[in-house]
Amino acid sequence: MTVKNFFSKIPHKIPEEIFSTIIQTKNITMERIISKGHASPENFWYDQEKNEWVMILKGQATLKFQEKDEIVELKAGDYIDIPAHYKHRVEWTDPDVETIWLAVHY
Amino acid sequence: MTVKNFFSKIPHKIPEEIFSTIIQTKNITMERIISKGHASPENFWYDQEKNEWVMILKGQATLKFQEKDEIVELKAGDYIDIPAHYKHRVEWTDPDVETIWLAVHY
Repeated sequence: MTVKNFFSKIPHKIPEEIFSTIIQTKNITMERIISKGHASPENFWYDQEKNEWVMILKGQATLKFQEKDEIVELKAGDYIDIPAHYKHRVEWTDPDVETIWLAVHY
Repeated sequence: MTVKNFFSKIPHKIPEEIFSTIIQTKNITMERIISKGHASPENFWYDQEKNEWVMILKGQATLKFQEKDEIVELKAGDYIDIPAHYKHRVEWTDPDVETIWLAVHY
């Protein structure tokens, strides 16, 4: 059995967000995302077919939800369950440390 | 949107392992497991219908796999993907600190 570590292979420089697939089946996709000061493009909203459960393992981020113009701040250990088609964007991620996300689309 | 924290509500005493369901659909079950010195009963093997992806967020544990009598040690950030019906048991968890697992059955 192969053991991997979630915090391995984090490059020193992160010019673009890094998406790494951990599990991919017809029912679920699990991925690790590394951000560092990144945000969604202006006026961009994720509008996803599947639900997305997402947890921050390191760092911090701010998500924005179109409905009610809601802002949510996340730090390490925080998780949130975003229903399919619930429009959201990454408003901010910490520019000083990597923000490492675990996302499960299901 | 509700934010929860993965490390919240950890009781001081943990006489039995604590299983908390985070997501439950027909395709996946996600749960948090807290162990502290617990192990699977002697001669017991998990033999599961679904694949299980499991990561340790805190603490440390040893898993044993029936095939090849293999032993695997896991520490924080380590994860492993156990195929359905691949028989395994928890051989050991740290008796001094909580071991907190994230398990996704898919």
